[in-house]
Amino acid sequence: MKVGEKHYRTIWLNEDGRSVDIIDQRWLPHSFRIETVDTVDGIAIAIRDMWVRGAPLIGVTAAYGVALQMAEDPSDEALQAVWHRLHETRPTAINLRWALDEMARVLKPLTPDQRAEAAYRRAAEIADEDVALNRSIGQHGLSVIRDIAALKQPGQPVNILTHCNAGWLATVDYGTATAPIYMAIEAGVPVHVFVDETRPRNQGAQLTAWEMVGHGVPHTLLVDNAGGHLMQHGEIDMVIVGTDRTTANGDVCNKIGTYLKALAAADNRVPFYVGLPSPTIDWTVSDGLKKIPIEERSGDEVSLVWGKTGDGEIAQVRISPDATPARNPAFDVTPARLVTGLITERGIAQPSREGLLVLFPERG
Amino acid sequence: MKVGEKHYRTIWLNEDGRSVDIIDQRWLPHSFRIETVDTVDGIAIAIRDMWVRGAPLIGVTAAYGVALQMAEDPSDEALQAVWHRLHETRPTAINLRWALDEMARVLKPLTPDQRAEAAYRRAAEIADEDVALNRSIGQHGLSVIRDIAALKQPGQPVNILTHCNAGWLATVDYGTATAPIYMAIEAGVPVHVFVDETRPRNQGAQLTAWEMVGHGVPHTLLVDNAGGHLMQHGEIDMVIVGTDRTTANGDVCNKIGTYLKALAAADNRVPFYVGLPSPTIDWTVSDGLKKIPIEERSGDEVSLVWGKTGDGEIAQVRISPDATPARNPAFDVTPARLVTGLITERGIAQPSREGLLVLFPERG
Repeated sequence: MKVGEKHYRTIWLNEDGRSVDIIDQRWLPHSFRIETVDTVDGIAIAIRDMWVRGAPLIGVTAAYGVALQMAEDPSDEALQAVWHRLHETRPTAINLRWALDEMARVLKPLTPDQRAEAAYRRAAEIADEDVALNRSIGQHGLSVIRDIAALKQPGQPVNILTHCNAGWLATVDYGTATAPIYMAIEAGVPVHVFVDETRPRNQGAQLTAWEMVGHGVPHTLLVDNAGGHLMQHGEIDMVIVGTDRTTANGDVCNKIGTYLKALAAADNRVPFYVGLPSPTIDWTVSDGLKKIPIEERSGDEVSLVWGKTGDGEIAQVRISPDATPARNPAFDVTPARLVTGLITERGIAQPSREGLLVLFPERG
Repeated sequence: MKVGEKHYRTIWLNEDGRSVDIIDQRWLPHSFRIETVDTVDGIAIAIRDMWVRGAPLIGVTAAYGVALQMAEDPSDEALQAVWHRLHETRPTAINLRWALDEMARVLKPLTPDQRAEAAYRRAAEIADEDVALNRSIGQHGLSVIRDIAALKQPGQPVNILTHCNAGWLATVDYGTATAPIYMAIEAGVPVHVFVDETRPRNQGAQLTAWEMVGHGVPHTLLVDNAGGHLMQHGEIDMVIVGTDRTTANGDVCNKIGTYLKALAAADNRVPFYVGLPSPTIDWTVSDGLKKIPIEERSGDEVSLVWGKTGDGEIAQVRISPDATPARNPAFDVTPARLVTGLITERGIAQPSREGLLVLFPERG
């Protein structure tokens, strides 16, 4: 999407046909830095140290990592080595593994001299497929926004709350939860976005807010505590969030705090939608609360807050006593009963096995 | 309560019988500073600049301010002037006004030469009355904690979630929401406290966590997003929060985010209690959602986070883009239907007009 006047993706191939440029997201929102990566080592560092994050973007970045390796050494040994080298950077990232397997599937049958070109071609396709997926989610979500807009006074914006960053920065472009918002802007439907800051890592304040500034989307930052109050007073028309994993019966695992917003939405009859690319549906699991293990991260993410000082330096400050321990569950599960609809690339599904199977009958 | 080995109140008269010592809460949790105040100006600054905060503590501090004035000049003019001088420090604080009116009521009928002694006596009584009120809330709350403890494995702590700081730092001692916790510690009933950090001002991370460290209460800091997830997984046995104002039908106005925790508690059948000194009941209002105006504070409190740097300095960092505006509603209203019980100094009331009138029949 746009950063000021210029349209960016999160990753793109340079004119040399070999190196890629990425946005080094560690410095957002305070500094917009583009880095050129031309080695597998550079790709591994960018994934491991979270210069890039978000499942779809990690997958595409890894695909270009394989392509860089093939340009350097297209041997069978090198192909196997790069798979392992990149897989270990974020071993639990499902999209990373999927992208590496997909590249291996395409490249293994080829002779070494065919592999570099094929690798760059497939990496570009994976990137384009992600954009197309998100645009489809955006089109279906836009229909919901249009329906709400039709009930408002002409010119009054549709107020949309989102949590965390399921934005274009987490994908190649458009994002998942944000795609309907960007499509509404394209279509001239007035929207205003309430951005949850999303403690502890503040992805809303740092990334989603930065996206909104860059693309010129009217928006307001909120602490995670405030959304319920605004819903009680009719200030929020709909909620759209992303998901890390949704079960076959529609339970939605997403960033910690999503469940609280879903409860408030249900209590105030505010529609609660999930932007859901179908690869994040886990058809093997039904009961999300019982079956999805929740990652517990370091308590330091709670106790220490990153930001920009008055001098413009990036620094962290401790907000709690040294002797106070912190718990840091990274995700929660929103039961399907609290979800209004799952916005997939094939349309909007009811949050149930039956609802998902209407759109994905091949899974029945 | 205790700060390490020593028991403190938040304000106390010095041995000179004239000056008072207060805890300068602006530096907590990073630095524990006691300041001696011996002028009305000093009292005014301490209230205005939030060296002291919390409705009961502000009232007692103002009472001592009147006493300091009477020791300096006990004339009618001086009594009137100090009322106005202190009232303007936090003009919307109801307890401040109540304490100033109460001091004037006691002192006006007296001759000037009787006033200083009477003022110090009444200020001390107001302080002691606050402690007695909180101890009563604590005793009634303790019975709830005991009942839950009886259902757990022997020795397993009762896990209590609290939001914001309704602790001893907001009162003279014990606190309102925390009184049952401190009484449980005194009684040897094992408890563990989950402390919501309470964005945007982080009173949980800064003040409640510091109280728990000082008094040796087992505790864990959480982001405000995490409590719902822990309730879903049976890790929280009860919630106790304070209140700034509770309506005659039991709607509870408290720090922003309280409503979301109440929703999660109801969804998971976790009992949700409010520590409620009866002076905070507003008998003139029934529907809290419609009738209680919610203060909107500066968005800078959301965008800028205070804390301690690695060098030990107190500094603030910006967490969001310079161009991103923020909304900052300070309180929300939890409807009575989500409240399990109101723990008052007279006992535990059902959250309804009828329930409150059982304990406060004189209001019927």
